[in-house]
Amino acid sequence: MAGIAPTPVLKDELDIVIPTIRNLDFLEMWRPFFQPYHLIIVQDGDPSKIIKVPEGFDYELYNRNDINRILGPKASCISFKDSACRCFGYMVSKKKYIYTIDDDCFVAKDPSGKDINALEQHIKNLLSPATPYFFNTLYDPYRDGTDFVRGYPFSLREGVSTAVSHGLWLNIPDYDAPTQLVKPRERNTRYVDAVMTIPKGTLFPMCGMNLAFNRELIGPAMYFGLMGDGQPIGRYDDMWAGWCTKVICDHLGLGIKTGLPYIWHSKASNPFVNLKKEYKGIYWQEEIIPFFQSASLPKECTTVQQCYIELSKQVKAKLANVDPYFTKLADAMVTWIEAWDELNPSGEAPVEKSNGKAK
Amino acid sequence: MAGIAPTPVLKDELDIVIPTIRNLDFLEMWRPFFQPYHLIIVQDGDPSKIIKVPEGFDYELYNRNDINRILGPKASCISFKDSACRCFGYMVSKKKYIYTIDDDCFVAKDPSGKDINALEQHIKNLLSPATPYFFNTLYDPYRDGTDFVRGYPFSLREGVSTAVSHGLWLNIPDYDAPTQLVKPRERNTRYVDAVMTIPKGTLFPMCGMNLAFNRELIGPAMYFGLMGDGQPIGRYDDMWAGWCTKVICDHLGLGIKTGLPYIWHSKASNPFVNLKKEYKGIYWQEEIIPFFQSASLPKECTTVQQCYIELSKQVKAKLANVDPYFTKLADAMVTWIEAWDELNPSGEAPVEKSNGKAK
Repeated sequence: MAGIAPTPVLKDELDIVIPTIRNLDFLEMWRPFFQPYHLIIVQDGDPSKIIKVPEGFDYELYNRNDINRILGPKASCISFKDSACRCFGYMVSKKKYIYTIDDDCFVAKDPSGKDINALEQHIKNLLSPATPYFFNTLYDPYRDGTDFVRGYPFSLREGVSTAVSHGLWLNIPDYDAPTQLVKPRERNTRYVDAVMTIPKGTLFPMCGMNLAFNRELIGPAMYFGLMGDGQPIGRYDDMWAGWCTKVICDHLGLGIKTGLPYIWHSKASNPFVNLKKEYKGIYWQEEIIPFFQSASLPKECTTVQQCYIELSKQVKAKLANVDPYFTKLADAMVTWIEAWDELNPSGEAPVEKSNGKAK
Repeated sequence: MAGIAPTPVLKDELDIVIPTIRNLDFLEMWRPFFQPYHLIIVQDGDPSKIIKVPEGFDYELYNRNDINRILGPKASCISFKDSACRCFGYMVSKKKYIYTIDDDCFVAKDPSGKDINALEQHIKNLLSPATPYFFNTLYDPYRDGTDFVRGYPFSLREGVSTAVSHGLWLNIPDYDAPTQLVKPRERNTRYVDAVMTIPKGTLFPMCGMNLAFNRELIGPAMYFGLMGDGQPIGRYDDMWAGWCTKVICDHLGLGIKTGLPYIWHSKASNPFVNLKKEYKGIYWQEEIIPFFQSASLPKECTTVQQCYIELSKQVKAKLANVDPYFTKLADAMVTWIEAWDELNPSGEAPVEKSNGKAK
C-alpha cells in the first residue's frame, strides 16, 4: 500500500499529530508521505461530531470526552475550541519524534515542480546536528554540498542535538491579524532553499502549522497553553510553546532549526476573528518577550521538566502583573507537567521505545 | 557610457574598494554595474609594477609608496603582501558607503539565468533596516512580498540602521585550508534567495570578498589587522574585522545582514599556501572567539572610535597571553584609529559629503 512512499524513515519512531474539527480529506494529498506513519488526531470542539479519516491510515483519535477521561481534573490544562489542544497528542504519544501539521496545509512543490516530502525534510533536520553558538553564512553546514565556512571554530563543528525543526509555508504566510488586514493579497511565493539554526539567545516566533520535534529531548516544553474557550486570547498557543522551548533549549544546549520544508498553506483564516483572538496578545507580547529574553534558568535544572516548572514560577512572579491570566497559565504549566509525567511514567529520562505503538 | 547600467543608486555616495596585485581585467565583466561608480584600487606588493585598469573607469590607485607617504609612521598599521591592505581604501574614501570585492570575483547568475547586480542588492540591504533583536522566520521582512510574521513584536518592526551587508559566493565557497584539502571538488551551487539579519549576540565569519558597509556608521571598525608580510598569520584579516564590527554593532544598536547578493568566485586559492597562513589562526580562534563572545563595552563608548579603542585595550589585556602578536595588533588598532581620524578630521561625527570626491 505504501509502496509509492520514499523510504519511510523513522516509521516506528514518529507520530503525526493533527488537531481538527472536520473530516480529514486533506490527508489524501499527503497519502504517499504520511501513510506509513501512525497518526494521532485530536478532535477539537463538539465530541459528538464524527470526523472521517480517509481509508488506509493508521490512527488513533481523541475527542474532548477522551481527554477528560484520560486526564481527569488535569484535563483543565488542555485548551478547548482552539488548535492548542494538539499538545494533548504530544503527551499521549509514546514515540521519540512528533510531526504536527494543520489540516489546511497541503503538499507544496519545490522550484523544479516536484512534490515536497515535508516530513522527510523534517526528519533530516532532526537527525543532523544544529549550530546555535556561531553563525554559518552558508546556512546548514551538514547539508550535502555545503560545509562550515572559513573562520568557523573547529571546536564547534560537531554541533549539538537538534530538538526542533520549524518548517515554513508557501502561499498564505503566517501573518497576524493587523498584517492580514493591511496586506490581504500578499502571498508567499519565495522558496528559500535553506535550513538554519536559530542562534542561542535569540527568540523566534514558532508556528505550529508545520512543526517537528524530538519528543524525548524537548516534549514537556511543547505545551500550547490556555487558549480558546474561556480564555482571553487565542493564536498565541504556538508562540508560547516557542518562547518556552527556545529558552529551555538554550539552557540545555539543544538546537532549533528553521527553514525547509515548505508546506502549501491553502486558506487565510478570517482576519477579523483573528484580531479578536489576538489583540491582547499583541500588547502583552511587548512585555512577555522581554521577560523570556532575560529569563535565566539555574544550572540545577537539568531536565526539561525541571526547567519548565522553574519557568512557570518565573511566569507567576513576573507576568502576573500584566494580567491575572498569567497566574492561571503558570498553574496550568504545572498541571501540564504533572499530566505529562503521569502518562509518561519513565519520567525525566524517557527510554526510547522504537517499536512502541500508542494506545 | 554608463547607459546600460540600471539606475546607479548612490552614485556619488559609494566607493568601490579593490585590493589587487594584477591587472584589473575582471572589471570588464562588471562594467555595466560598476562603471558609474568611483573605484579605489589598493595595489598590494611591488609598487613599481604597473596595474592596468580597463578604459572608462573612474579610479584612484594607491601603492605601498603612496600609503607610506600619506600615513607616515602610521603606515605600520596597514598590512603588506596581503589583501588586508584594502582597509587603507576605506580610510581614504570620503564617501558614505563602501563596497569591496576581490579581483577573482565575477558576475554570478540568478536561477533564471539573469546577471546579478551585486552592488544594487548590497545597496538595498544597506538602505533598509535590520532586525537584530528577534528572528523573523520569513527572513528579511523589508523585502517585497514578505513581512514580519505572526508573533513578531510590533515595537521592533521599525528595525535598526544597517551597517554591514555581507554577500555570498557561488562556485568556490569560502572554506579554510583544511576543508579545501578535504573537499577539493566542492562547489557552491545552491542559490539561497534570502537576506537576513545576524542576531544580536551572535558572531559570524565575515568574508571580505563581497562586502558592503556604511562607512559613516561603522567605518573605523573595519580594520583588517596585521596580516601577511612579517606577521605570523594571514587570511584572518576579514575575520578580525568581522568580530570587532559585530561586537561594536551590537553595542551601538546597528544591524548586520548576510545572504544575497552572490558573486561568482572563480578560483580556489592554494590550500597548502593557505594552511601555512592560517594554521595559527585555526587554534588561536578557539580563544579569540570566546573573547569576543564575552566582550562587553561600557555605555560611555558611544562612537565607533571609542568602542574600538576600548576593544584594543581588552585585546591587549586578555589575548596577549595567547601570543605576543596580539599586543602588536592591539597597538596597531590604536594606530589605525589615529590614522583614520587624521584622514577624516570631522572625526567622531562625520558629516555626509554626498558630492565629495576622494583625493
